[in-house]
Amino acid sequence: MSVLIVGSIALDDIKTPLEEHKNLLGGSASYGAVAASFFSPVNLVGIVGEDFPKEHIALFKTRNIDLAGLQIVPGETFRWSGEYLWDLNTRETRSVALNVFEHFTPTLPENYKDTPIVLLANIAPDLQHHVLDQVRQPRFVIADTMDLWIAIAKPRLIELLARVHMLILNDSEARELTGETSLIKAGHKLRAMGPQYVAVKKGEHGCLLFGGDGQFFSCPAYPLEDIHDPTGAGDTFAGGLAGYLAQKAEGEVTFATLRQAVVFGSVLASYNVEKFSLERIKTVTQDEIASRHEIFRRISQL
Amino acid sequence: MSVLIVGSIALDDIKTPLEEHKNLLGGSASYGAVAASFFSPVNLVGIVGEDFPKEHIALFKTRNIDLAGLQIVPGETFRWSGEYLWDLNTRETRSVALNVFEHFTPTLPENYKDTPIVLLANIAPDLQHHVLDQVRQPRFVIADTMDLWIAIAKPRLIELLARVHMLILNDSEARELTGETSLIKAGHKLRAMGPQYVAVKKGEHGCLLFGGDGQFFSCPAYPLEDIHDPTGAGDTFAGGLAGYLAQKAEGEVTFATLRQAVVFGSVLASYNVEKFSLERIKTVTQDEIASRHEIFRRISQL
Repeated sequence: MSVLIVGSIALDDIKTPLEEHKNLLGGSASYGAVAASFFSPVNLVGIVGEDFPKEHIALFKTRNIDLAGLQIVPGETFRWSGEYLWDLNTRETRSVALNVFEHFTPTLPENYKDTPIVLLANIAPDLQHHVLDQVRQPRFVIADTMDLWIAIAKPRLIELLARVHMLILNDSEARELTGETSLIKAGHKLRAMGPQYVAVKKGEHGCLLFGGDGQFFSCPAYPLEDIHDPTGAGDTFAGGLAGYLAQKAEGEVTFATLRQAVVFGSVLASYNVEKFSLERIKTVTQDEIASRHEIFRRISQL
Repeated sequence: MSVLIVGSIALDDIKTPLEEHKNLLGGSASYGAVAASFFSPVNLVGIVGEDFPKEHIALFKTRNIDLAGLQIVPGETFRWSGEYLWDLNTRETRSVALNVFEHFTPTLPENYKDTPIVLLANIAPDLQHHVLDQVRQPRFVIADTMDLWIAIAKPRLIELLARVHMLILNDSEARELTGETSLIKAGHKLRAMGPQYVAVKKGEHGCLLFGGDGQFFSCPAYPLEDIHDPTGAGDTFAGGLAGYLAQKAEGEVTFATLRQAVVFGSVLASYNVEKFSLERIKTVTQDEIASRHEIFRRISQL
């Protein structure tokens, strides 16, 4: 099965306490699509300017990502610049230039409209709605989001929750959106807002997955000594999860399949943070994924 | 096998955003001993004043805790008063009155000196050393500590690390003691300071266990919707862990046994925070422990 992924495609400038890199491939759809491509065919929806480096297009093609939904238009690509503080847990946005993104209207190619699994990666809720409007009877729709949309587009985000099967967000966003300090309460409250499943990401502490009838899964994070760049970890997690679902969920999406999807999303995310941008994830092999999955299982066995 | 536990025995005044209770049974040895008693016989070492309520002595006796090492002396029992902020993760100490604790010299009854498992619960490193000096060839010694001792007794704490098999501390203490922000690096660095095993507690995010040859275990926390009083969660965890070890480790203490000890310690701690003081933990049953352990395993299975 294929997965349709819509989100941002960006050129990032990123500074950590130890390193600084410019003009990196970034954006939620870039990370999500490459991560998903390890498990299933990907239909990418996004927009870039004519300045977008050919090597990044080549990377998407190497990963067999369908680019019929990628608009390449006059102007400059979306740019984001951020800096991580000493512990890499706190990030400050230095600048954002929407550029071609400002007038982006995602239009699905005809052959995308029946994609069974849809990942609405982190992007304005209006655009997520607009993509969803064009998909015919999707089997499973996942929405990711971020604090910015909770702050400036909360009503549209809440409308979206009623239209998706699964919501992915991080712990502070879950608390922000529900007003609950307990993540367990927040998870239940978010489910009551629409999505059958909710994944609350806790960064270095892993992820909580909530389903119906009290179904619950607590997944730790894969332990890493050296994290070089946390950018895109959440997007990679969402992409890996969606791709795994597309590969496995021939029938109905079950909680058991989703648990495994969370685990494989976590494995992909753990590789992602080992280098800047998509440098590590683009070279990862199926053997490496299988091997880290096995170690992950072993060190987490209760 | 028995476990020897030395630590504080206190009367606590505790305020949370929703409740306030006074004159509660508290202290690291109280929580630790009652938690351990679910798995093995306990030899308690501590001190209280003549004001110490008879009902608390009765509770220890109900749990079959040996009180030959409990000194009851003229004066008042150690008192601690603390307040939790809105999210229950931040605690402020309101007042401390050492009282009889000020001149405490733990002296082990003769029959305590061959206890195979020793838990040096949270207490001044000098007192932990003093107890350890009196034990003959213990099989496995566990030390717990807190930020206060890192701040005011660091050299003595570091000396203690070379004398114990296992150190238990929380994430911020691990970072403080090693200067490492990465908990994985901190865990390795702490092991290099002496203890063969290190458990880094992460509160609501669970616990990381480090052993030799890269042995590692990531244990989530049991998910709870309502936490009433986090006081003593760490002490209960340490006590449950030590008691489980005393029950199971007939031969050498292995990493596999320690993993299970961490899991059972977590189960006990999860019950502890459901009510104030030891109110919940003192009524827990073996069936409840087994049942929560089974649920814990199920929701954490990768």
